[in-house]
Amino acid sequence: MRFSLIASDGLARAGLLTTPHGSVPTPAFMAVATLGGLKGVTVQQAEEIGQGIVLGNTYHLALRPGAERVRRLGGLHRFTGWRGPMLTDSGGYQVFSLARNRTISDAGVRFRNHLDGGELMLTPEESLRIQRLLGADIVMAFDECPPHDADRAAVEACNRRTAAWLERSIAAWRAPGGIGGAAEQALYPIVQGGLHRDLREASLADAMRHDLPGIALGGLAVGESFAERIQVLDWMAPVLPADRPRYLMGVGTPLDLVEAVARGIDQFDCVLPTRMGRHGIAYTDNGPMRLKRAEYAEDAAPIDATPSAASRLSRGYLHHLLKAGEHLGGQLLSLHNLGYYRRLMARMRCAIRSGRFSVFAEQFRSGYRNDSPEEMAGDG
Amino acid sequence: MRFSLIASDGLARAGLLTTPHGSVPTPAFMAVATLGGLKGVTVQQAEEIGQGIVLGNTYHLALRPGAERVRRLGGLHRFTGWRGPMLTDSGGYQVFSLARNRTISDAGVRFRNHLDGGELMLTPEESLRIQRLLGADIVMAFDECPPHDADRAAVEACNRRTAAWLERSIAAWRAPGGIGGAAEQALYPIVQGGLHRDLREASLADAMRHDLPGIALGGLAVGESFAERIQVLDWMAPVLPADRPRYLMGVGTPLDLVEAVARGIDQFDCVLPTRMGRHGIAYTDNGPMRLKRAEYAEDAAPIDATPSAASRLSRGYLHHLLKAGEHLGGQLLSLHNLGYYRRLMARMRCAIRSGRFSVFAEQFRSGYRNDSPEEMAGDG
Repeated sequence: MRFSLIASDGLARAGLLTTPHGSVPTPAFMAVATLGGLKGVTVQQAEEIGQGIVLGNTYHLALRPGAERVRRLGGLHRFTGWRGPMLTDSGGYQVFSLARNRTISDAGVRFRNHLDGGELMLTPEESLRIQRLLGADIVMAFDECPPHDADRAAVEACNRRTAAWLERSIAAWRAPGGIGGAAEQALYPIVQGGLHRDLREASLADAMRHDLPGIALGGLAVGESFAERIQVLDWMAPVLPADRPRYLMGVGTPLDLVEAVARGIDQFDCVLPTRMGRHGIAYTDNGPMRLKRAEYAEDAAPIDATPSAASRLSRGYLHHLLKAGEHLGGQLLSLHNLGYYRRLMARMRCAIRSGRFSVFAEQFRSGYRNDSPEEMAGDG
Repeated sequence: MRFSLIASDGLARAGLLTTPHGSVPTPAFMAVATLGGLKGVTVQQAEEIGQGIVLGNTYHLALRPGAERVRRLGGLHRFTGWRGPMLTDSGGYQVFSLARNRTISDAGVRFRNHLDGGELMLTPEESLRIQRLLGADIVMAFDECPPHDADRAAVEACNRRTAAWLERSIAAWRAPGGIGGAAEQALYPIVQGGLHRDLREASLADAMRHDLPGIALGGLAVGESFAERIQVLDWMAPVLPADRPRYLMGVGTPLDLVEAVARGIDQFDCVLPTRMGRHGIAYTDNGPMRLKRAEYAEDAAPIDATPSAASRLSRGYLHHLLKAGEHLGGQLLSLHNLGYYRRLMARMRCAIRSGRFSVFAEQFRSGYRNDSPEEMAGDG
C-alpha cells in the first residue's frame, strides 16, 4: 500500500491511497459492509455512486459464515463481489460492544458470541489470522478500547494492553505462510488513551515505535460528546505522522467528518449512512431530514438538488414508503446517504486542493442543523 | 392505447403494446409495485434489467397514501418515478383476499380494511374514480372473483355481477371531467366463470359486448391446480379476440408463463419474482433454486450463466446473506428473478418471431423442475 499526500490546506489533507485493489482519493469515507454486503445496497449501486473503499467486520464474518468459508469461496473480495479497496477491523470493538460474558486477560478476550452464546476467544494472533483469511487490503491491530467513562487507571491499563497486543499483531501479520499477511496487507495500529491528552500521546508513541503504513484513532464515537471528540482531534492533529493515512474509526455524522478533515484526518468509517437511512433519515447540507415526519407527506420536492437514486422521487413518496413499512424506503435513503457522504468527501477534497477548505468548512457549519446532535453520535 | 400483432406461431403471439408512456413488446410480464414501488428494487434497477411495464395495486394505494394524495403529488408515474407503461388493478381481488367483514351486494363491496379495520365501500364507480386519480395507462373493470371451490350457482352469480359491474365501470371510465378516463386510459374487462367452460365462454361474451381495448382472464391463480389452469386456457384460446391484448391476471411461475404464452396470452402479472426472491428462491431454467439449503453454503458458482446483479456473486454468498437475515439477499434475488422473467419473455418473443416457439417450449418444459409445483401457484 502506498499513500501520497497531494495537497494540504491548513491541517486538512488531500491524498491518494493505493492498494492492491485500486486507488482511493482521500479524505475517504469507508462504507460499512458488516457481513460482507453493504446493508440494502448492491455492489453495482455502490460502484455507481463512486464508493471508493468499504469495511468488513471481522467479528461478524468470523461468526457467519466463518473466515475459512470466506477463504474457500475466494476471499472477501471474490465472496462479496466488491472489486475495490477493502479494510477489515480487528473484531475487538464488536467483542466489547456486542458479545456477552467477556473475560479480558493479557492473552486476549474470551466471550460468548451474541448469536448462539457459543464461547470464543479472540487474541491478536487469532484476529490477524482471520483477517488474513478474509484478505482485505488493510487490516487492523487487535486493541483494547476503554469505555468512554473509564477512569484514568483503566485507560492506562488499556493503553498497556493495546501496546502489547500491537506487538503480537505485528508478529502475526509478519509471520510467513499462506496468503495475505505483511506482503499483501497493510496493518494499521490503533491509538487509544480515552479523553486524556497525555495518555493519547503515550499511546501514539507506542504505535509509532513500529513503522507501519497507517495510523488509526480508536476509542471515539463510543459515547463521548461532540466537543470531547473534537478536543481529542485537536490534541492529536499536531503530533500525528504526516506521511501516512490517518484513520478515525467509527466516525461519524457529516459535521463530524468536516471537523475531522479540518484536523487532518484522511479516512473514516461509520454505519450512520445506512443505519439512519433504514430509520428514515436522509442527510443533507442542512442536516438530517426525518422523512417520516408528517410535514413531508405532501412534499413534492426531492430530498435535495443533488443527483441520486432518490433525485427523481419526492419527499412525499419516500415518506409514504417509510410509513407503509416498505424496505425500499430505507434502501433508497441508504443509497442517498452513501452518495451524500461520497460527494461530501469529494467536495472537501476539491476545496483542499484549491486552498478553499476553511471557507467550505465555515459555510458547511453554518448551514448544517442537527436538532439532536448526540442522538447521531456514538454509533460506530 | 394501441396493440399491434407482429407475429404468431401456433397460438403464441408476439406483439407491441403502445401506451401514452411508451411501448412494451409482448408477451410482457408486469412486475408488481404493490404500494407504488417494486418490493426491494429501485426504478433505476428495474430500468436496467429492461422491465417494460409495472402494475400498481389500487386497494393498497387507496389505503396508503390515498389516491387523492397520489394525484396531488403528480399521479402514480410522477409519484413513483416510473416513467414507462403502468397498469392498475381494480382493487376487487385484494378486497376478496385481504379485507375483513366483506358484505357483497349489487351495489358493491363493503368491508373493513386489513390495516386499521376502517369500514370502506368499493364499487365500480369508486374503483374507476381511484384508478383515474392514480392515472395508469391501463385500468381494470371492477369484477367479482369466485373462490376456486365455489359451486356452479355461485360462479353464475359472480358472472352476473361481473357483467353488471362492467357496464358501470365503463360508464365511470367514459364519464367526462378531470384527468384520465377513456381519453387517456385503456380499460380491460375481466372474464370470470371459474372452472366451467360454458360459464367462461358466457363471461367472455359479456365482456365482448363492449368494444374495449384489451381483455383479461381473472379468477385463476386463486388455488386451482396447474392442470385446471391449463384447462381453462385451452378452452379460452380459440375464442379470445385476436386483435387485442390478452392479460392473464396473477400468473405465475416461469412454467405457467410458457404454457400460457403457448395458449395465446400476451400479458401477465405476478408477485412471485419478488416474493420468492425475499424467501430465498432464485428462478432458473432448471426450476426454482432454494438458496437457503445447506448444499449451497460453499457453492462458488453463480446462480446461472445469465447476466444479472447477482452474476458476479456465488451461491455461497447469497446463501450466507439469506441465512444471516440480511435484506440484501432478498433484494439481489428479487432483482435476479425480475431479470429472469424479463429475459424469459424476450426469449419467448424471439422464438415466436422466428417460428421456433414449440421447440423452445418443449425444451423449457423438459429442463424445468419444480419440486413442489403447487407451492408456487395461487400466489397472485
